[in-house]
Amino acid sequence: MRFIYLDHAATTPTHPEVVEAMIPYIREKFGNPSSIYSIAKEIREAVETSRKQVADALGANPEEIIFTSGGTEADNHAIEGVLYGSPQGKDHIITTSIEHHAVLEVCHYMEKRGFKVTYLRVDGEGLVDPEEVRKSITPRTALVSVMHANNEIGTIQPIEEISKITREAGVYLHVDAVQTVGALDVDVNNLGVDLLSVSAHKLYGPKGIGCLYVRKGTKLDSFIHGGAQERKRRAGTENVPGIIGFGKAMELARLERKERAEHLLPLRDKLITGILERVPDSFLNGHPTLRLPNNVNVRFKYIEGESICLNLDFLGIAASTGSACSSESLEPSHVLLSIGVSPEEAHGSVRFTLGRDNSEEDIDYVLENLPVVVEKLRAMSPLYPGR
Amino acid sequence: MRFIYLDHAATTPTHPEVVEAMIPYIREKFGNPSSIYSIAKEIREAVETSRKQVADALGANPEEIIFTSGGTEADNHAIEGVLYGSPQGKDHIITTSIEHHAVLEVCHYMEKRGFKVTYLRVDGEGLVDPEEVRKSITPRTALVSVMHANNEIGTIQPIEEISKITREAGVYLHVDAVQTVGALDVDVNNLGVDLLSVSAHKLYGPKGIGCLYVRKGTKLDSFIHGGAQERKRRAGTENVPGIIGFGKAMELARLERKERAEHLLPLRDKLITGILERVPDSFLNGHPTLRLPNNVNVRFKYIEGESICLNLDFLGIAASTGSACSSESLEPSHVLLSIGVSPEEAHGSVRFTLGRDNSEEDIDYVLENLPVVVEKLRAMSPLYPGR
Repeated sequence: MRFIYLDHAATTPTHPEVVEAMIPYIREKFGNPSSIYSIAKEIREAVETSRKQVADALGANPEEIIFTSGGTEADNHAIEGVLYGSPQGKDHIITTSIEHHAVLEVCHYMEKRGFKVTYLRVDGEGLVDPEEVRKSITPRTALVSVMHANNEIGTIQPIEEISKITREAGVYLHVDAVQTVGALDVDVNNLGVDLLSVSAHKLYGPKGIGCLYVRKGTKLDSFIHGGAQERKRRAGTENVPGIIGFGKAMELARLERKERAEHLLPLRDKLITGILERVPDSFLNGHPTLRLPNNVNVRFKYIEGESICLNLDFLGIAASTGSACSSESLEPSHVLLSIGVSPEEAHGSVRFTLGRDNSEEDIDYVLENLPVVVEKLRAMSPLYPGR
Repeated sequence: MRFIYLDHAATTPTHPEVVEAMIPYIREKFGNPSSIYSIAKEIREAVETSRKQVADALGANPEEIIFTSGGTEADNHAIEGVLYGSPQGKDHIITTSIEHHAVLEVCHYMEKRGFKVTYLRVDGEGLVDPEEVRKSITPRTALVSVMHANNEIGTIQPIEEISKITREAGVYLHVDAVQTVGALDVDVNNLGVDLLSVSAHKLYGPKGIGCLYVRKGTKLDSFIHGGAQERKRRAGTENVPGIIGFGKAMELARLERKERAEHLLPLRDKLITGILERVPDSFLNGHPTLRLPNNVNVRFKYIEGESICLNLDFLGIAASTGSACSSESLEPSHVLLSIGVSPEEAHGSVRFTLGRDNSEEDIDYVLENLPVVVEKLRAMSPLYPGR
């Protein structure tokens, strides 16, 4: 049977060159990079080469990269590290209502620890208004955390405008760039960010590794305490194979970014236009143009997104109703509710996220089958007026 | 040239069966286990099989296993999670002066956050006195954290006796078992622990993965917040290849433990006896019998352990002066100072930790070369009276 993977926002297949780069470090190059003998030296150097590959892809310096176990740890580290590292009285953070749970849940937790959080609203297409950021900053504000692009609806935020405001106010800016590194030109200096989270497995790298970019001079407490690894900023024996794979994936992302975007954009637009034309009562969630080049998120009235996904799965199409991280939850997506979608229609949404292996034939196959699936499900739905 | 790896306490070569188990999950089985379509289901099941393998090796239930990025994260989670999860007024933790930095540094950090820490002394062989634990418990005590065996000197603590005391007092017991799982029979019920940290790469598994065992009913805050993974106890996309490799490594550890210990013990004792006999002014650090089956730690008067290691490295022998995690530090080992070794002699110590691939010939080679290295270095040492 045909298999079409359209859930690249959840995770990506590991790039063959990444796999090949990693395998020697799983098999025979097993030394601990912090040890003093010669086999460790070679491994330490390989880790530093990876750090440079990661830094180069972000326009950063290698010393500004802290390897973490992934994007979630990077988000936790940025928020807890800044809040705990701030002077007394700096106890306020500003974020948005559509952040990934890796930011929102840390914020909720820090509220329990006595910190204050402002959750900014977004407009109907998921955009944050930079003026709202400006208005929310108080003398107590330590950090603003706004994601670069949303993982569900793909809306890209005006980070450059927000960073002008945070810099003027002397407040740190953290950006969760888990969805954008490899998809957009993510340059920490152009964006003007102080902290930025990256996850390898979202950009054809391995799971279990990512990084936090920390601009030189940023005051940040450690998050995982212990040994002296990562210049005492992140303890624990380095995940060497993961780091090697991540470095390679970042190098490939830098070299292939334009080509990937040029490949994805027409496929994305073909899929959006095709669905909206062929399926009545379907609507695009998120912004029509300020949007990730691989993200399609559509709501279908009268039916459940989960039923659509299960039916597509039978046809060999892997798509999702939203974030994999909250797939076990029965709650409607907090992102869709935030942009004003009703709980019923939020449940009727499906996300298709494209990747480098997808072809025009894949899109044709979806456009051929999806309308049939929707029609079949609607025919069974008590909510459907045409029934 | 000959290559003899004698630093298994720092990290171990990945077992060939572990490598083979992991590779399909790096190459083609890339799906996100939290997704709803069929390729994700298979991966989710593989993760749960690993969880069972890990639980079985510890005598635990699978629901009691939280996968972490390694032993350090597990230690951080246990300590911060218990302290933050405890009711108001329970703000005291008891630990020992010879814990790994992954415990000590968290304790130091929590002191900055307002918590109180008691650091118990140990005797000249590195043993904690359970009576000291009993005496230190107050109504404010939330947690006792004592390592199962020390990573530098190999001393095995009387955990069963300590757990009787903590249970009686209604205080949680956390044990860092990073050095013992795979080497000793680590059964959470026999030991009577509430929380236990494990690291895969210390037992022929991959780097970047480990777990925290949490006894059912233990009150523990999350440490990394975000998505609903690990029953909402540890957020972040699962490190699937790491988890698969860890599961396999734990299964092998369970099946091969006796055989490994029978292989290692005579080699360890041959090395200890051989060094002490052949090298004058050399002394064993740690306990002669309550000792990890693979640990040899010897201090050589008048010279530096680091010079010995570098000279051994030229001869193809990889050994270390102590913990790789603090190899960049110029401070003498806190463990050796705690057992009463002088700073000079602490600097003169070398740790040899054996593994399943070591042979009697390896030991003979060390015993042939080490005395020559020590003699050569002493001949150059201004401290050496025989010079």
